[in-house]
Amino acid sequence: MTTAGAAGRVDSRAGRRDALRRVAAERGLDAVLVTNLLNVRYLTGFTGSNGVLLVHASGADLFGTDGRYTTQAQTQVPGVEVLVDRATVAGIAREAVRRGAGRLGYESHDLTVDGLAQLEKVLADAAAGGTLPELASVRRAVEGQRAIKDDDEIESLRRACAVADQALAELAAEGALRPGRTELEVGRELDARMLTLGAEAPSFETIVATGANSAIPHHRPDATELRDGDFLKLDFGATVDGYHSDMTRTVVLGHAADWQREVYELVAASQAAGRAALAVGADVVAVDTASRDVIAAAGHGEHFTHGLGHGVGLEIHEAPGIGPLGAGRLAAGMAVTVEPGVYLPGHGGVRIEDTLIVTDDAPELLTLTSKELLVL
Amino acid sequence: MTTAGAAGRVDSRAGRRDALRRVAAERGLDAVLVTNLLNVRYLTGFTGSNGVLLVHASGADLFGTDGRYTTQAQTQVPGVEVLVDRATVAGIAREAVRRGAGRLGYESHDLTVDGLAQLEKVLADAAAGGTLPELASVRRAVEGQRAIKDDDEIESLRRACAVADQALAELAAEGALRPGRTELEVGRELDARMLTLGAEAPSFETIVATGANSAIPHHRPDATELRDGDFLKLDFGATVDGYHSDMTRTVVLGHAADWQREVYELVAASQAAGRAALAVGADVVAVDTASRDVIAAAGHGEHFTHGLGHGVGLEIHEAPGIGPLGAGRLAAGMAVTVEPGVYLPGHGGVRIEDTLIVTDDAPELLTLTSKELLVL
Repeated sequence: MTTAGAAGRVDSRAGRRDALRRVAAERGLDAVLVTNLLNVRYLTGFTGSNGVLLVHASGADLFGTDGRYTTQAQTQVPGVEVLVDRATVAGIAREAVRRGAGRLGYESHDLTVDGLAQLEKVLADAAAGGTLPELASVRRAVEGQRAIKDDDEIESLRRACAVADQALAELAAEGALRPGRTELEVGRELDARMLTLGAEAPSFETIVATGANSAIPHHRPDATELRDGDFLKLDFGATVDGYHSDMTRTVVLGHAADWQREVYELVAASQAAGRAALAVGADVVAVDTASRDVIAAAGHGEHFTHGLGHGVGLEIHEAPGIGPLGAGRLAAGMAVTVEPGVYLPGHGGVRIEDTLIVTDDAPELLTLTSKELLVL
Repeated sequence: MTTAGAAGRVDSRAGRRDALRRVAAERGLDAVLVTNLLNVRYLTGFTGSNGVLLVHASGADLFGTDGRYTTQAQTQVPGVEVLVDRATVAGIAREAVRRGAGRLGYESHDLTVDGLAQLEKVLADAAAGGTLPELASVRRAVEGQRAIKDDDEIESLRRACAVADQALAELAAEGALRPGRTELEVGRELDARMLTLGAEAPSFETIVATGANSAIPHHRPDATELRDGDFLKLDFGATVDGYHSDMTRTVVLGHAADWQREVYELVAASQAAGRAALAVGADVVAVDTASRDVIAAAGHGEHFTHGLGHGVGLEIHEAPGIGPLGAGRLAAGMAVTVEPGVYLPGHGGVRIEDTLIVTDDAPELLTLTSKELLVL
């Protein structure tokens, strides 16, 4: 399925757990209780709906789930001891005490208030007069790891982007994007096609926005019909191996008016500037500015109402954020979107968006659909 | 779209907020901060990815979201004041202090540990020397309301179930469930067909399990090929208006062996007994027992390894749980599944599952696909 193959995947996941183990050691933690399900998936490969991971300084990690997933855990999480317990977090917490965790890291951005209260109670019961483990948040340590994609992850993102590219190409070739059809029909066909092509799911609620609706950045598809001379904006993606692709293309139906060509070329130039600014070490605010300045110089600054882009991976929006309020610098292996837009309320709007990988050279473009203005 | 129509939906949501207001008053709360996104959807109709609701004793409710959803909030949440703020929870919390909330309810099963710390800080800043609001968990008050479906919700569930019924009927009629095809292919076609028929998404990761795989309750579809004489178990559903359908059917390919007919008839009888036990006031453990006893009496008790069913609605699994460890009684308007199974490891398994509505009379069956043993 991937360049690395199944064995490589197991190795890469063990490597990810070791990286977290090092972070834990630096912070004086004996173990980390990972409850965020995507973080658990990242560190183990487990795709079920209930899983908890204990990463222990000793290397004796433990994966917990319930009886529904006994078989799946054995297949997906080889090399890690599995604990099957209906009260999964409690079971793992008791085992953490048994294995010795004087200082236990947990994810305070994920665990709920009730979850923490239950955890404290279980730890107190398990310690039973002995040393009560001290809880300390690891904050977003795993999300920090996840911002830099490894080869397996990049391959999954490539496949997710390829599915979206192909789905759009097929629909366009079949004439599915024609006047008289509704936004909802087009959206559903796009989603269905991605599934047929191997996606597990659409990456998010597909945006199909035509005519004046294209001026709404996050329009939900409705019964509006596609019409000759209107913009048609499609923002969509596919999920493959849990990894999300994200692409926006804006086309014109029938014929393009001058104002449409003008807005389109402006956004395309802004998007190219943003892509060109994707470099290792670049400040995320500077990347946003590089793209935004092109639009502002043309007098449309107020019509670009959102940030330039975002990281993408096991979540559709993850670190790093690329926008005026962002912070931090790009690093090799980050997967990000570049998606400027110009929205003219009541008239129409254009957004062009790619998913790319930051590298030491030029960024690798994963969404390969043409960015020429297509007149369908 | 529904029997009640858009105006009816607005009314029913106002009624839901009033019901929560009454619960809050009983508990001595001046306002409730609803952060769980599905609970927010239930109480307002908002379908975006960021929304928070303040239900205030005075009736002056407030809905918060960010700039992406300004238009959508105006359309989907009419009759409720909208606050657009990037820091959504903080913005609403400040406004709660301004409107007077000496005792503020919050959802401790949803808010994270970090979220509570941030909320406490915002409240302290907003109170600024005045009276600091006291926080008190409302627990699962809204989930409690959600367990009883109103007419709008039941209509959405009917449509979600109808989509799943039709998708399976079409695939069967087209010969898509034939030897040589893989579980993955069948699963993807089923998902794609549901989207084409109007589903927003599959309800969950579709289960397609054939041959020995059918003995694994939650098997993930893989490259295993369908073969003559094998069981084919399909567990799937469609989401419509955010409501999930859930159905399992098990068929046999080519011809059915005696042992397959025997297991099938046993599970069908158990499922009928479970459905017959669905009555207002019935103890959920008794409902489970009614179905389980049929299987146990045939000597297969150990091969029925999970609970009988669960509530279904905006979540695929919600209250009430129907199983040996459940608690509580059924009430009119509850939407539940009844899904016994017999799994013979290494050989094959059968599960038959319906989604039904508990009523004062016989339960309303929403999943209408035949439960006769189909030999395809």
